[in-house]
Amino acid sequence: MLTEKSLEQTAGCGAQADRLARIIWARVTEPADPLLGAVLEVLGAVGALDWLNSVTHSAPGGADLPAELRNLDLPTRNRVLKSLNRWQPRLADVNLDREMRALAAFDGSVLTPQDSAWPLALNDLGHACPACLWIRGDISLATSLERSVAVVGARASTSYGEEVTAQFVTELCEREFTIVSGGAYGIDITAHRAALAVDGLTVSILAGGADRLYPRGNAHVLEQVANSGLIVSEHPPGSAPTRARFLTRNRLIAALARGTVVVEAALRSGALSTARHAVKLGRPLGAVPGPVTSMMSGGCHNLIREEGAVCVTDPAEVAELVGTIGRDLAPEKKAEEQTLFDTLNDDEAAIAEALPLRQAVSLESVARTAARSLDQTMATLAKLEMRDIACRDGSLWKRKI
Amino acid sequence: MLTEKSLEQTAGCGAQADRLARIIWARVTEPADPLLGAVLEVLGAVGALDWLNSVTHSAPGGADLPAELRNLDLPTRNRVLKSLNRWQPRLADVNLDREMRALAAFDGSVLTPQDSAWPLALNDLGHACPACLWIRGDISLATSLERSVAVVGARASTSYGEEVTAQFVTELCEREFTIVSGGAYGIDITAHRAALAVDGLTVSILAGGADRLYPRGNAHVLEQVANSGLIVSEHPPGSAPTRARFLTRNRLIAALARGTVVVEAALRSGALSTARHAVKLGRPLGAVPGPVTSMMSGGCHNLIREEGAVCVTDPAEVAELVGTIGRDLAPEKKAEEQTLFDTLNDDEAAIAEALPLRQAVSLESVARTAARSLDQTMATLAKLEMRDIACRDGSLWKRKI
Repeated sequence: MLTEKSLEQTAGCGAQADRLARIIWARVTEPADPLLGAVLEVLGAVGALDWLNSVTHSAPGGADLPAELRNLDLPTRNRVLKSLNRWQPRLADVNLDREMRALAAFDGSVLTPQDSAWPLALNDLGHACPACLWIRGDISLATSLERSVAVVGARASTSYGEEVTAQFVTELCEREFTIVSGGAYGIDITAHRAALAVDGLTVSILAGGADRLYPRGNAHVLEQVANSGLIVSEHPPGSAPTRARFLTRNRLIAALARGTVVVEAALRSGALSTARHAVKLGRPLGAVPGPVTSMMSGGCHNLIREEGAVCVTDPAEVAELVGTIGRDLAPEKKAEEQTLFDTLNDDEAAIAEALPLRQAVSLESVARTAARSLDQTMATLAKLEMRDIACRDGSLWKRKI
Repeated sequence: MLTEKSLEQTAGCGAQADRLARIIWARVTEPADPLLGAVLEVLGAVGALDWLNSVTHSAPGGADLPAELRNLDLPTRNRVLKSLNRWQPRLADVNLDREMRALAAFDGSVLTPQDSAWPLALNDLGHACPACLWIRGDISLATSLERSVAVVGARASTSYGEEVTAQFVTELCEREFTIVSGGAYGIDITAHRAALAVDGLTVSILAGGADRLYPRGNAHVLEQVANSGLIVSEHPPGSAPTRARFLTRNRLIAALARGTVVVEAALRSGALSTARHAVKLGRPLGAVPGPVTSMMSGGCHNLIREEGAVCVTDPAEVAELVGTIGRDLAPEKKAEEQTLFDTLNDDEAAIAEALPLRQAVSLESVARTAARSLDQTMATLAKLEMRDIACRDGSLWKRKI
């Protein structure tokens, strides 16, 4: 039985007991269970586990509802009581010794809200906040995310999407952004790889255990991420990535990064769920446009059309979107070519254009063609003459360049 | 001298005198001259010309300011008086007989606000409204524009832009939209050509005289436009297309079409001026996204980012943007592929996924993996069994497909 006492005995002190209780809650629940969030809030991790335990091991109707839970509104209270049925089959399988051994064997650490490296951004998830996080890598998760952007997208990316990802990530790393992604084939792994290539910081958030680098084909890249950046999971080591876990994982990507950019996505790409979480969490969302003939840009265009994503076309625009006001303002885009006429005002341009290049003409003719008064034409011709644009031929005028 | 009397004598009646006066005003002014608009509003075309004429031929300070102009606010009045200097050099060159001969020689008609084919949409231009329009083609301009869209873009279009233009225009013609454009190389002429190819209606608005098909390389296509659609110009026959006239022409494209779509545009493309006129006139504006690596999509992306253009990715979205509410709603985009899991709700999906394909497992194991209660797992397994997704093996369960 996982009593409060057994937890404290196993873990050693109150803080450690809380950590261990959270690890067990991660075993007992699936991510983003809002009822777990509600229970943790009122009972704490240890108290909640103690209660679940006592309910599970007493005769039906035998255990008291703790006072704190009685204060919940009735619908929530009823849903919490129903959740017990969902949690109990897994609780029966939990073994404290085994958990401690798994923790000792894990080549990383467990973060809980008590730790300074716990990102406060997760508070925005409310009751869907994970109980704890398994981390591989030596740097502070909170610090690494201070300046960060999630770069996500289709598994079936095109070479266009991969090129854009690599180009964006390279420059975003130079601008000292941490690149957050999900380690999947396609855009995700291209983003991680591009960050690693320029010694940028990159964080991969997985849908299975942090010891279980998935998909296997990306394991070598994810190992490098673990070595120089961070691997993050809300699942205990050994957990399999399931369909539902990919979706709940996406909320973590959206919550942990300062903003999200979708590079390529088909109309039903998983990256769109990350995008929607970002919007729901009030994080900036960017989408990279592409050819309308490419299925893999369809999801991005839809985000721009329907879901308020900002159309981002270069790394500076991404930096402006997710970065710091004042530091990351994108320069206004200007075309470079400048013609003679760009240096002239409207009157000067009209009069310069009214001048023939070969056969010089009278002042009156220039004024007529340009639709300007004689006085203004004369004054402007004098200016254009000084700038070597117009020249006289007796009393007639023509253009010099 | 172009007195009111000489105009009426030449033209035959009041309405014809107004028409002739407007033709002369088009000679005397450059397009979008707001002061012409102000004068026409208070004096009418004939009266305004009569006044200009009398001022021009009297000694300085000798002509009276008409009562109607004295009612203008002082700054406008002063600017009108200054405009005289701009108009007079050209007025001196006007010859009534020559105008009548040019009109007789013109293979088309002149539209003025009195004509039923005059598009009321031009009212939105206020004082920048053209005095009259030269038209080639046999259909009513107003009618042809009732359901219309301007498709414009870069001269230096890419094959991507041309393909998209042709595809969009083809379908928009099938949806009975008239295609408005400017006859330029690149996107413009591709739009006209695609409309002609499917016997769609297309209107070309030129920056020079309607008899002067410019650019010459597109003359054969523009001849076809004149034959089956319309060529429109606010310039008298023979007028040269100048830089300024391309810009003022763009306001006509924006005003005449119900909405504007920019297919490709570099950051300083002339198509962007059409786009901005459309926004200023309250017309819907769409821009087609493209690869961020293409300079020719840079202007489109900028319109989407900075100027409120709607990102349009297919003809249905264009139709929805510029068409009629109720008739032209674009269908929601849906990906076609559907997997087994798309037909299941969350609980069913979790339980189906918890079933192994080979080695059958116990009910308890399924419940634990799926994080569902025993009751719910049992009920759902029964449903999945009926749908041939789950099957029993004694008291154990596995997945069937």
